Amino acid sequence: MIKFFEKDPYAPIQYVYGVEKVLYKGKSDFQEIMVLENPHFGKILVLDDVVQITERDEFFYHEMLVHMVMHAHPGPRNIIVIGGGDGGAVREVLKHDSVEKVYFVEIDEEVINVSKKFFPSVACGVDDRRVEIKCMDGAEFVKGRDSDIDVVIVDSTDIIGFAKSLFTVEFFKSVKDCLTDEGMFVTLSESLHFHKDIVIEVQEAMKLIFPTVDLYTTPIATYAGNWWTFSAASKKHDLRSIRRPYAINTRYYTDEIHHQAFMPPKMYERLMQRKLQW
Amino acid sequence: MIKFFEKDPYAPIQYVYGVEKVLYKGKSDFQEIMVLENPHFGKILVLDDVVQITERDEFFYHEMLVHMVMHAHPGPRNIIVIGGGDGGAVREVLKHDSVEKVYFVEIDEEVINVSKKFFPSVACGVDDRRVEIKCMDGAEFVKGRDSDIDVVIVDSTDIIGFAKSLFTVEFFKSVKDCLTDEGMFVTLSESLHFHKDIVIEVQEAMKLIFPTVDLYTTPIATYAGNWWTFSAASKKHDLRSIRRPYAINTRYYTDEIHHQAFMPPKMYERLMQRKLQW
Repeated sequence: MIKFFEKDPYAPIQYVYGVEKVLYKGKSDFQEIMVLENPHFGKILVLDDVVQITERDEFFYHEMLVHMVMHAHPGPRNIIVIGGGDGGAVREVLKHDSVEKVYFVEIDEEVINVSKKFFPSVACGVDDRRVEIKCMDGAEFVKGRDSDIDVVIVDSTDIIGFAKSLFTVEFFKSVKDCLTDEGMFVTLSESLHFHKDIVIEVQEAMKLIFPTVDLYTTPIATYAGNWWTFSAASKKHDLRSIRRPYAINTRYYTDEIHHQAFMPPKMYERLMQRKLQW
Repeated sequence: MIKFFEKDPYAPIQYVYGVEKVLYKGKSDFQEIMVLENPHFGKILVLDDVVQITERDEFFYHEMLVHMVMHAHPGPRNIIVIGGGDGGAVREVLKHDSVEKVYFVEIDEEVINVSKKFFPSVACGVDDRRVEIKCMDGAEFVKGRDSDIDVVIVDSTDIIGFAKSLFTVEFFKSVKDCLTDEGMFVTLSESLHFHKDIVIEVQEAMKLIFPTVDLYTTPIATYAGNWWTFSAASKKHDLRSIRRPYAINTRYYTDEIHHQAFMPPKMYERLMQRKLQW
């Protein structure tokens, strides 16, 4: 569709979804929450007009966010998930038998409630006995903790919104401090098509704190720019190796995908030298 | 953006582009042609309301369409490009020194004319002395030819439109017959997110004709479903190996990307067994 509108440097293409029904519309202390029904994607969770997940394709994002670091880690037991109020990241974390404790830190309790009601297949792990829900700012939660965490996963809204405190050098330092010596960290870092400079900035900030930083991508149809990036960091091990057998049930992620998803070395170098031009 | 509209099984997300200026609008014998100016993408070529290329990101598609088979082939000299009236595929083909002849078979001469005027950086190879323009149906052009062609490249509009004659078993047979013993063939095959069944159908049809068929993908922001697939076939060699040094100037394609872009074997098997569920 061709429409006359102003320049939007964040998302130069607007994605328009057909809506069969508005199933829920409400306002929390933090944002507007909507649940819509779409003929192709099923139910869609929308926060402040940005599509967060759809029933049909949420697994691409959640599997790729969670399982890369969870398989690179030799034995993840204590996990922090920051954001991800829909419960999808928590669901994926719980697939790993080694996991004993998940701190599920979501600032907006209303998102959890709405997801439990409308997205039971996504929020199915939220009430697991290993999960402790903390409704607070993730940056506050990690600050000054003991170093007892194996993996920290950030599943926030877009970086330009109120999630920006989760993308500062200060926050990355707090994350590092709360990790064990073998600890790992992963966060979304936007689109390589539309937000290449943001990707570079996140990588550069992580490199100030962590000895090992890496970047992997996956195409996600419902996120602006689609060529979605995840930035991962580690205190000891590299992230490209798989250290435990691939023995969980997934729809997209596999050991093959693990190896293929990382940006190839020469391309990564060109990216960080700002030599990729688009 | 959330809008009430009917189910569109072809593209369940509508992509809306801002338009600063309509630079050209006309009707050829085959389709409506528009050239628009967008703040992010620069000039956009639109055929029958579908975005074909944008100045900013056309190279992702054209490089990936052309250079995979051109590097898998041991020495491509005679090439047929079907469609691709913008000239982008021809431009990429001409980067290979081995190339002696390019039959550029575009059914709609008007697309070539408009592209030469508005997209000079894309159409720059169209007047090269090695290029012979044939304004006719590509399926007719390959039918009954001698077997003197090294590589056939199909750069058509979407499969659901009037390009569907380029995706039949009969056409694939004609392509095979016009290829030398080492000949290769590549075509777009739509999105793995939105058109998985079409991807499978194209692969299955190719396998009826060619001994070697493969599938590779790349994320393209401006095509519906983004996770774009290319179906490639070969009479003798596998397509995953690079048989000539990577010595051309590209912005995205490299030898690294060549190896990474192919679908991993187990995932490919699951796709073709219709076990990938989304």
